Amino acid sequence: MKIAFLGLGNMGEAMATNLLNAGHELTVYNRTASKAAPLEKLGATVAATPAQAVQDAAIAFSMVTDDAALQALCTGPYGFLPALAQGAIHASCSTVAPDTNRRLAEEHARHGSHLVATPVFGKPEAAAAAKLWLVMAGDEGAKQTLRPVLEVLGQGSAQDFGPDPGAANVIKLCGNFMLGAAIQAMAEAFTLAQKSGLERQQVYEFFTTTLFNLPVYKSYGKLVAERHYQPVGAAPAIIRKDLRLVLDEARTHVVPMPFANIIFDQLSATVAKKEDVDWAGFAERVAENAGL
Amino acid sequence: MKIAFLGLGNMGEAMATNLLNAGHELTVYNRTASKAAPLEKLGATVAATPAQAVQDAAIAFSMVTDDAALQALCTGPYGFLPALAQGAIHASCSTVAPDTNRRLAEEHARHGSHLVATPVFGKPEAAAAAKLWLVMAGDEGAKQTLRPVLEVLGQGSAQDFGPDPGAANVIKLCGNFMLGAAIQAMAEAFTLAQKSGLERQQVYEFFTTTLFNLPVYKSYGKLVAERHYQPVGAAPAIIRKDLRLVLDEARTHVVPMPFANIIFDQLSATVAKKEDVDWAGFAERVAENAGL
Repeated sequence: MKIAFLGLGNMGEAMATNLLNAGHELTVYNRTASKAAPLEKLGATVAATPAQAVQDAAIAFSMVTDDAALQALCTGPYGFLPALAQGAIHASCSTVAPDTNRRLAEEHARHGSHLVATPVFGKPEAAAAAKLWLVMAGDEGAKQTLRPVLEVLGQGSAQDFGPDPGAANVIKLCGNFMLGAAIQAMAEAFTLAQKSGLERQQVYEFFTTTLFNLPVYKSYGKLVAERHYQPVGAAPAIIRKDLRLVLDEARTHVVPMPFANIIFDQLSATVAKKEDVDWAGFAERVAENAGL
Repeated sequence: MKIAFLGLGNMGEAMATNLLNAGHELTVYNRTASKAAPLEKLGATVAATPAQAVQDAAIAFSMVTDDAALQALCTGPYGFLPALAQGAIHASCSTVAPDTNRRLAEEHARHGSHLVATPVFGKPEAAAAAKLWLVMAGDEGAKQTLRPVLEVLGQGSAQDFGPDPGAANVIKLCGNFMLGAAIQAMAEAFTLAQKSGLERQQVYEFFTTTLFNLPVYKSYGKLVAERHYQPVGAAPAIIRKDLRLVLDEARTHVVPMPFANIIFDQLSATVAKKEDVDWAGFAERVAENAGL
């Protein structure tokens, strides 16, 4: 199938590589063109603009940093939406506000194409290993076409959250919030244990082999236990943006979220300190505030 | 082996039954004597006082509600500590302050016996199914004697947290706090999703089959998704006491714990409302505060 992939950050590059390896005919675009070189070597065509990338594509994936970048990709100068073929599908993978995908979906419909929100869960390693968890929401026919293509990217089938594309983004925001809550909880627990005379590492090992024997606790918990937040899977600024979207959604729908406010503030402090760490590095605020 | 079991609540009764089924010679004691009847039918001897229960016992288990109850059981009128044989071991399973077990361990040492802190993780169903997770801390020789006996109660071997009995209680407090954090996180996420137009049940099912595919998320999450907090595994007042101990420990060691403060307040509100619900029912405060 002719597929375009727009946005070749850590996540996008890994996903595009898997699509290419699955035998799809891939055209890629990235704002910083040099990032397309590895995919070009693997056989992808590199386009000079978003509009050029989607020529003849049945499916266009996008994976960019935020709402503004997605909007620009679609409807900015050389944006791809006017160039997208009738009946073509835009698989919108970025973590953006639910309303952004809803509005863009309406614009796609006016152009005769479809936007399906397809946010993904997982670190870049999970993307590379085709072990992402995927969700999707949007037009029914478009989801049917998309389903087998998405299977190349993740473990299991993409979970369908119905016709409202925003619903998939709500799930994505809930998920990132819940990951943040797990990180803050481990940070508080490990710090309390350490100041009570225990070894952080032993506490980590106990919980992640018993009650919290789960990849997300193991992977983020290791960073928290060791207080060494490398490698950078996602920068604090990226996930702070996600938590801001959580709080925006909570304000719109009038939902008090005390945990989400705390995580957002921890991420804000981490962004302000300009540390080059994974977003889980916000756990360090808990240790610091306890004088460690 | 001759074993005494003191405290036959939901947890204690299930654990005592498993010790009996493993072939140990069991003497039991409970403040409300009628609760001992099922164990008596299974072959246990019922003692009239704590002191009488531990006569000739090599190991005495205790599983009571709080620090005061444990202290009374040991050193109150008819308390068992003076009656415990030289070299006998008290396996102290209750969730109490680390310092309570430390102080009691010193008293045991003065009497020539040992206190090993052996708190357990799991609901009454897990206790009945011998699927508790166990930790232990205290005298090395006493732990060696205790280890095979504890294996009858749980899955896997008890994790050893060293010679300081308080360390095992720190771990227990950290675990209950982390469970509370998972419940609050799900409550906020499910409530946000519901008010954004999604079904709580579908959100629950997605997360507990993907990122949070873990028994504790599944079991507590089901209550949160359905907003029906039955059966009562542990009453809100019991776990509020545990969170109070977490905050006491955090104050002693000067550890700011913003999540723990929130969970404690949610539990306080739930206790104040006198609802007959499982402790996870504090999640209902999140839904209520969002007008659901």
